[in-house]
This record gives sequence, C-alpha cells and structure tokens, in this order.
Amino acid sequence: MVSASAATKPIAVVLLSGGLDSAVALACAQRDGFDVVAATFDYGQRHAVELAAAARMAGALGAQRHVNMRVDLAAWGGSALTDSSIGVPKDRAELASGGAAPPVPSAPPSSAARVTTVPITYVPARNLIFISLAAALAETVGASDIYLGVNAVDYSGYPDCRAEFLRSLEATLALGTRAGAQEHKPWRLRAPLVELSKAQIIRLGADLGVPFALTHSCYDPRGERACGHCDSCLIRRQGFADAGVSDPTVYAP
Amino acid sequence: MVSASAATKPIAVVLLSGGLDSAVALACAQRDGFDVVAATFDYGQRHAVELAAAARMAGALGAQRHVNMRVDLAAWGGSALTDSSIGVPKDRAELASGGAAPPVPSAPPSSAARVTTVPITYVPARNLIFISLAAALAETVGASDIYLGVNAVDYSGYPDCRAEFLRSLEATLALGTRAGAQEHKPWRLRAPLVELSKAQIIRLGADLGVPFALTHSCYDPRGERACGHCDSCLIRRQGFADAGVSDPTVYAP
Repeated sequence: MVSASAATKPIAVVLLSGGLDSAVALACAQRDGFDVVAATFDYGQRHAVELAAAARMAGALGAQRHVNMRVDLAAWGGSALTDSSIGVPKDRAELASGGAAPPVPSAPPSSAARVTTVPITYVPARNLIFISLAAALAETVGASDIYLGVNAVDYSGYPDCRAEFLRSLEATLALGTRAGAQEHKPWRLRAPLVELSKAQIIRLGADLGVPFALTHSCYDPRGERACGHCDSCLIRRQGFADAGVSDPTVYAP
Repeated sequence: MVSASAATKPIAVVLLSGGLDSAVALACAQRDGFDVVAATFDYGQRHAVELAAAARMAGALGAQRHVNMRVDLAAWGGSALTDSSIGVPKDRAELASGGAAPPVPSAPPSSAARVTTVPITYVPARNLIFISLAAALAETVGASDIYLGVNAVDYSGYPDCRAEFLRSLEATLALGTRAGAQEHKPWRLRAPLVELSKAQIIRLGADLGVPFALTHSCYDPRGERACGHCDSCLIRRQGFADAGVSDPTVYAP
C-alpha cells in the first residue's frame, strides 16, 4: 500500500555498490526527501559478493526499485579490480603504482595533490560510465538527482571521485540529454560524502540507521568474509575505530 | 605482416554502428593517420542486423581490432529504438513527438532551434554512455582520440549529437580520467561529419572508398532489407540522390 505522501515524493537514482559508502548515500537521499531507485552495476569485478550485498541493502532500506545492469568492463582489462592478471595491493605496500606506501590519510589533501598519482585500482572511466547509465535510468523514471557515495578523502587519487569532475559532468548532462536540453531540468550529481573521512561517514550512517553488517567493502574477499588487508579493508577498520562505532565486519583469519 | 610505419601510428577508437555515417567516420580516422580500434555496442536495439554490418565493415576497412560490447539499455525502455511498445515513425509523420511532420532539412538549423523538440527516437543518454565506454577502451589501448559519426544536420533535435555537448564532455574527460588528470593528454572527440549534409557525407565516403553496400541504416528492417520508409531510410535515399552517387541499398518492396 502506497500512501498519498509517499506517492508525491520526487525520485532520485542512487548508485548502490554493496559497499558502505553507497549505502550511506542511499540513506542520505531518503533523508533529503527522495524515493530511491537504486542502480547496481556488475562490471566483471572479482568481488561479485558486492552484488548480493547491494540487493540486500536495497531491500533493507526500502528502495522503491533496484535495477541490476551488466557492463563488461573486464573485457578490456587494465585494472586490478577487473583484471585477474594484476594483483590487488595488500597492506598499502603498492597502492600507488610504483610509489612508496602512503599512510592512511587523516586530512583531505589538496585537489592538485590528489591527482598526481592515480592508484593501480583505478578502473578507466568507471564513474563516468556508471553516472551515464544512471542518467539514462533517471531520464526514464523522471528523476534528475543522482546520489553517489564517492569520496575524495580516503580514496584520494581517483580523478573521477572529485567534486570538480562531478560539476563538469552536470554541465555535460545539461547539454546532452532531453531532460537538460529540452525540459531545462537541472541535473544534480549529489555526493554527500565527498569531503568526509571514513569515520565521519560511519557516524553519519549510524545516525541514519544504515545496517552496516549488510555492506561489503573488501577488494579480495574470502568467500563471504573480508580479507582484512586490502586497502579498502584497512580504511574501513580504521574508520570504525576512529568513529567509535562497533565494526560488524567478519574478517578472514 | 605489420610494417614498421604502421606499427608507429597512433591509435584512435571509432564508434562503429554498422550504419553509413560511422563507416565514413572510420575512414576519416584512417585518412587522418590513425590505426583504428572499432567499438560496437549492442544496446538491445531492434535492428540487430546493424551489428553484423559493423563487423563486416571493420574487416573491410582494416580496423586493427573490433570490440563488441553489450549494454542493456532496453532493460528500461523509454525509446522507440529499444522499446517495442513504441512504434517507429514512418514517412516523417510523427518524427517529433506530438508535433507536425517536419520536412527533410537541407540547411543546418541554429543550435538553439535544434533542441526545441527532441525526436521520439532519442535514447536517453545514449551517446554519453557510448563515449564513456569508448573512453575506457581508449585509456586501456593508450588512445585519446575518439571518432564519432554523429551529425547535427539530418538528425537535428538530438541533444547528444551537438558539437557543444562534445566540447563539454572533452572537459569532463580531462578531469575524470587518468589519461587527462595524471598524464595531461588532451581528449579529442572528433566528429568529422557533425555539420555535413547526408549528401556531403556520402560524397566524402565515396572519395575515401567506403563500401556503402555493407552499411545498414534502417530503423525497422525486413530481414536483411531496409524498409525504405522510416526516417533513417528517407534521409539515406535522399542523400544518395542529392550526392549523385548510386544507392546500393536493397529496399523491401
């Protein structure tokens, strides 16, 4: 049964990966008054367990609809996350390709510093592809707001996680879509976590009631369990510790 | 056998649909000194005969590589080209959704006029999605030039066929990719046909030796034969007539 007030809410598309950040982004969209259409992309990543986590999260948080879409980025290789011939960096030993092990950052680096070295886990044009597909879905369902869990602090170095990239893409969407060019709807790529630390994201998610136990962050899982040593696991563990929130993640021994 | 000079050519990615325009764009890339990696997208379109035409064309023109990629835009519907519940307009009777039948244009309308009414055959964010995927492929093969057969004259009204959209997307790519943000490679979205009439495109293709008989343009084919009445067929027939070039297309009776 749909209530009258629920039926009149605007719709936002949320990119839902199955990880922690995008779950908090979904909760932010609901906090901001949107009904959520969640979109999850299977891009040939090795951690397919994320896809199951995304479906569970969409259900748990009450998304109106959850769309799964296969995009075979693995066909070309070129990233540690899609190409099994490139190893996933462990314990921050080789996070920056060819560089020394960087510390887990605590303060945002400057925008210029962020793009001097792109991590080996960069997937070519990934966020551009995902946002483009989300925009197509948004036009179809009459939405012009897209929520993303991208973050430029803990994931410094990814050029497609920066606010300036998102602002530029909004302008491109305004020129290249019916919604923008004919209906003059403003596209809004909302990245509520972009300047937050992992600890701040976890505190925000806890306030919004996100069931963290359903999320999955590991780049290199052992079955259902996180490895505990990849970059994503290290940042997640530290974030729960810094936030003073109990970490429900089950790590492999 | 690869000659020494051929091995040193830069690579361009060409979006190859199986239609006439993209075949001419591929020939332009070769004319401009590039080795070509062709990319064809199967997006659930009804005219899958285009895919076979693209493969034949890539072989005939000597592309170094031809990548096929499935992107299921039909999952959402919302366009006459992907949603079987929306009819393909015939004989220009309903090209502009809800508007009167426009004449086949002979001169480019102004940029502002072009986007007042987007045709019913618009596919949400299609060119943005295709160019994003092509950019990912380009980063993987070390290319930063992408050739497109988009045209703003005969296909007026498509917001994602305009030069201003392409310029904006180049800026977005510069911010959002490793090639742009770290290596400072300039992205070039080359649309050599964007301001040409269909007759001019056909004359250019004839000069470059494009085997037009291998191309397929029809939105609503009868087996291997073109319908002769959809918007794409009408523009193609008129283009060959205006160019004074023999039309090798086989039309259904």
